[in-house]
Amino acid sequence: MVDILHRVGVRTPDPKTVYDALTTVEGLGAWWTDDTTGSADVVGGALEFRFPSGGFDMEVVELRPPERVAWRVVGGPDEWVGTTIGWDLRQVGDYTIVLFTHQGWREPVEFMHHCSTKWASFLLSLKALGETGAGAPAPRDVQIDDWG
Amino acid sequence: MVDILHRVGVRTPDPKTVYDALTTVEGLGAWWTDDTTGSADVVGGALEFRFPSGGFDMEVVELRPPERVAWRVVGGPDEWVGTTIGWDLRQVGDYTIVLFTHQGWREPVEFMHHCSTKWASFLLSLKALGETGAGAPAPRDVQIDDWG
Repeated sequence: MVDILHRVGVRTPDPKTVYDALTTVEGLGAWWTDDTTGSADVVGGALEFRFPSGGFDMEVVELRPPERVAWRVVGGPDEWVGTTIGWDLRQVGDYTIVLFTHQGWREPVEFMHHCSTKWASFLLSLKALGETGAGAPAPRDVQIDDWG
Repeated sequence: MVDILHRVGVRTPDPKTVYDALTTVEGLGAWWTDDTTGSADVVGGALEFRFPSGGFDMEVVELRPPERVAWRVVGGPDEWVGTTIGWDLRQVGDYTIVLFTHQGWREPVEFMHHCSTKWASFLLSLKALGETGAGAPAPRDVQIDDWG
């Protein structure tokens, strides 16, 4: 079992800005993908994220404002279904520190390598959104390789 | 045991450009850190990478031109010493695909989360170097959080 781990710091006075970007459809659409629909702010809510190449369906499994959000993947690529995605937020001085985990991958397949780098670039999009008001969600996302 | 995994694609006609950027001091200095010294092109070579906040000493443990490079960390932060860093390259159409692994971390500590995101940003620096001739090595590297 292998996990994807990341850490970014968003220069903002308190965790509310990042928490809102993870728990509203408008916020999610401003850093991950334009095509985000569903309910992000209730446990049990269903979220649909769509990209030019496919998409992911998530169930919101944990909300602890403003310090933790977790989702379970219920639809999408086989490698993703059943995995969990967690966001832990805390304030350290001028930064909201985001600890990100995407856990439960069965094998360290090449697609996982891609997703790890891609998550990093989307976390930098979340950081940019929090600091400047503008992220880089799909379809205007940073292209990292031949898969997008 | 947990690993850091990444994948980027560098739009370049063959793997030689990326291989050279991993096996010459000049190349390494153009995407990771300006302050790179040592011997990158011989197995057993010692490499010293220095950053404003510290640095890493590596031993080159594998060279298979132009498809694989591996280093062992012999000096630096406790969490890094004894870990290994591998680079596998192959050509897929217009892209040199880089599969990156940083293996042997004892625990998924917060510093590992930081290093995972930081590696992604340096891999995008390597990609930019290969595609445009200009990377973003330290001290001009992308800042991802309060640790750099």
